[in-house]
Amino acid sequence: MAQNQPNNDYLPSLKNQRGEWDEASDVVVIGSGFAGLAAAIEAHHAGASVIILEKMKAPGGNSIISDGGISAAGTALQKNFGINDSPDLMYSDMLKAGMGLNYPDLVREVANRSNEVFQWSIDYLGVEYLDRVDLFGGHSVPRCHAAKGITGSTIIKRQVAKVRELGMEIRLGVYFNNFIRDSDGRVIGVLVRDGYVYKNEESGTDNYIKANKAVILATGGFASDVAFRKAQDPRLSEKIDSTNKKFATAEALKEALRIGATPIHLCQIQLGPWTSPDEKGYGDGPLFADYIVFSYGIIIDPETGKRIVNELGDRRMISDKILNSGHPCIGIADLKAVEQSGWNIGRSLKKGVVRKFGTLQELASFYGIPGDELRMTVEKFNSYVFDKLDKEFGKPIIPKADPLLYPPFYGIRLWPKVHYTMGGVQINARAQVIDLNQEPIKGLYAAGEVTGGIHGACRLGGCSITDCFVFGRISGRNAANEKI
Amino acid sequence: MAQNQPNNDYLPSLKNQRGEWDEASDVVVIGSGFAGLAAAIEAHHAGASVIILEKMKAPGGNSIISDGGISAAGTALQKNFGINDSPDLMYSDMLKAGMGLNYPDLVREVANRSNEVFQWSIDYLGVEYLDRVDLFGGHSVPRCHAAKGITGSTIIKRQVAKVRELGMEIRLGVYFNNFIRDSDGRVIGVLVRDGYVYKNEESGTDNYIKANKAVILATGGFASDVAFRKAQDPRLSEKIDSTNKKFATAEALKEALRIGATPIHLCQIQLGPWTSPDEKGYGDGPLFADYIVFSYGIIIDPETGKRIVNELGDRRMISDKILNSGHPCIGIADLKAVEQSGWNIGRSLKKGVVRKFGTLQELASFYGIPGDELRMTVEKFNSYVFDKLDKEFGKPIIPKADPLLYPPFYGIRLWPKVHYTMGGVQINARAQVIDLNQEPIKGLYAAGEVTGGIHGACRLGGCSITDCFVFGRISGRNAANEKI
Repeated sequence: MAQNQPNNDYLPSLKNQRGEWDEASDVVVIGSGFAGLAAAIEAHHAGASVIILEKMKAPGGNSIISDGGISAAGTALQKNFGINDSPDLMYSDMLKAGMGLNYPDLVREVANRSNEVFQWSIDYLGVEYLDRVDLFGGHSVPRCHAAKGITGSTIIKRQVAKVRELGMEIRLGVYFNNFIRDSDGRVIGVLVRDGYVYKNEESGTDNYIKANKAVILATGGFASDVAFRKAQDPRLSEKIDSTNKKFATAEALKEALRIGATPIHLCQIQLGPWTSPDEKGYGDGPLFADYIVFSYGIIIDPETGKRIVNELGDRRMISDKILNSGHPCIGIADLKAVEQSGWNIGRSLKKGVVRKFGTLQELASFYGIPGDELRMTVEKFNSYVFDKLDKEFGKPIIPKADPLLYPPFYGIRLWPKVHYTMGGVQINARAQVIDLNQEPIKGLYAAGEVTGGIHGACRLGGCSITDCFVFGRISGRNAANEKI
Repeated sequence: MAQNQPNNDYLPSLKNQRGEWDEASDVVVIGSGFAGLAAAIEAHHAGASVIILEKMKAPGGNSIISDGGISAAGTALQKNFGINDSPDLMYSDMLKAGMGLNYPDLVREVANRSNEVFQWSIDYLGVEYLDRVDLFGGHSVPRCHAAKGITGSTIIKRQVAKVRELGMEIRLGVYFNNFIRDSDGRVIGVLVRDGYVYKNEESGTDNYIKANKAVILATGGFASDVAFRKAQDPRLSEKIDSTNKKFATAEALKEALRIGATPIHLCQIQLGPWTSPDEKGYGDGPLFADYIVFSYGIIIDPETGKRIVNELGDRRMISDKILNSGHPCIGIADLKAVEQSGWNIGRSLKKGVVRKFGTLQELASFYGIPGDELRMTVEKFNSYVFDKLDKEFGKPIIPKADPLLYPPFYGIRLWPKVHYTMGGVQINARAQVIDLNQEPIKGLYAAGEVTGGIHGACRLGGCSITDCFVFGRISGRNAANEKI
């Protein structure tokens, strides 16, 4: 009888063309974001020679525009602030937001190792964090640690420096074309195009790289791949913006699917509820919305003047409420909220994304909110703050929070943008990519946003960097020790 | 530069082995359920020679154990009962339940052609329906037409008779192994195994069948494929039963993914809320639960004695509520409800799946429900029936419904089972299978439960047969007219 053979189409194509490799390395890492660089570092320390490939002209992928927040449970910093947290609590928060679609064993790894990788980023990478811990929606306690500058580039810079210090080279402008496998289905190398010019699909010259041990896929998500995301969720057309870089596309993920990787949760696509239609991409508004409005303030439907949601609910909940209202909603905070948060919102004020008003009435008329309704809504909310109990939406009231009373008042228009793709290739706890028969694909590992199963229906804030570090490191170690 | 070639691994395997075909036909249909047989009939009328392949020893696939209910909008039968319905209303009901994940153009086809295919099943196939139209959860009006005997086999028998009358042969015990494509990526045939013995993966002899025009994939869903469904939703382990036949598995869907079909909504898996843990598979309980309890009665959490949901909500809503309670819930109806429904529940009573009680108190003590709580719940519900307004859950009260007052009272334990997989391969409105570059795969069509995108996050009751008829017929017509 005929067996269902693995897909070997790329092997003949190699043989046909030359029958030999241009170069070889123990481990080939595709992608130079949080996950890829963490993988390269661990593979190196496990004794492997490593080649890192990046399609763009600069390293860091989409990671450099993340806000650099990492969620970790039981950290020294949390203890300084008297925050009582545990891996078990983080685990249950992630499963709850994931609506049970997440893989418990993978969530376990992320939660249990969260403090370990956070400490690693400080001690080994030398990343510096602000002296604060933030509470994000869906987390039971403040758990998010912000890298200095509140940007992922702070972390990427340290990873790149470390990689170079270890003598590894990040190849820039190299386009991953496809995997090369042997007759057994094992991934034994990649066909790439050197000298690739972004968006010029014809550019670059073929380069066949042999992976003596394994290939690690760390190419990120597809939030900016309109065709691919729209196939999974028809609502996410070109009309909806993304917080990601334009190059956050699915071509490498699709190559993994072409060789039989199991696709997981591709239709679980996260919209960021803290973005503003008054600026492009991620922008500066989210700092105000996510760290100040959602924690201390309220989100108002301008047509009714009423709150619409628990502002500290998870991202899916808040995004859906705003989208379902059919129009941008208004995030509101006051002077005390901004002071309590400790954040500087100068940039977003200068841009006009966040606006300042002497009175609530002025804010109401600017955004076209019925003024009396808004006043009543704020009074009601203030009574909840006073009682430390939100009788309407059950928002957890932050202990140090004050009622919204102190001018100036600040407002932002909120409209969701595609932020993160929970879905991707299936992996196991060793970061091996799993095929359609639920067997590992020999010689292929994956880590970071290109994988699925860790966040299920909804990724919580700050959990992406944790995921990238945990599984990036696991994939690097295991790839270097791959038995041939 | 290297192009991302299509996967041609099966072509060499053909050449290597013999380089010639065993037989040929214009159209090859894989699967003999509602969709496959509808496709074969239309392909035949479009002038194509057709071979129908079925892996089991009998035709009909999982369709024969469906309850034979077909949802259609604007039918003569609806008009007889004074039901005011339209394709637009059916369209919006399907999109609402699908949570916007459905493809609007595909939903359009199903809703607009629903009455056409329903009438076709009567006039052309000779299917007989009961003189009634039922209201299912998520539908705005009664829209579900029940084939005589309340079973899909009534319909399948007519389809099989018609297929044979037209001189087409249904090959039984033929296992689909894989697609065969040319260097261009076009599907030009299939490798199957004749004489396959179910569950014996080694059985059968290779048979290479050339498809002069196209292959139609109509292999159904994967509700019984524990490994594949669990990869998409880890909660759906072997511990959760399925309403489907054991052979409702994913092997053919996986072959489509192996040649680059785009997977859509695979993690959207529907649990049936009307099943009982007191019998295996679909069983007899659902007739009582879905047609009587959900329409006229109530669902009670035995621990609280209170209702938990709008009993006419969609399947996802009700299943989640029961699952989240952590234990089976109790469906309750009375004599009048059974009489109003016009259904005979003798079989489920005989089985002991549905139980009869002289008083509510007896029912309460049998199921361990706090009696006073239950009495209060029923009184409250009866006042809603009287006012025609459910103040708690907004359940639409059926005009002819009576309060729950008339003994005997009937009860059933409810616990969800995996019922339907909304996800599958992506198709366009011509039923062509779409690849990862969002281009049609030449020579490959698909219809029915193996496709994704039509029902989104939740399929409404009775919409599966409509879908199978509409896209089965579209795929048959277009496959027969495929330009080579």
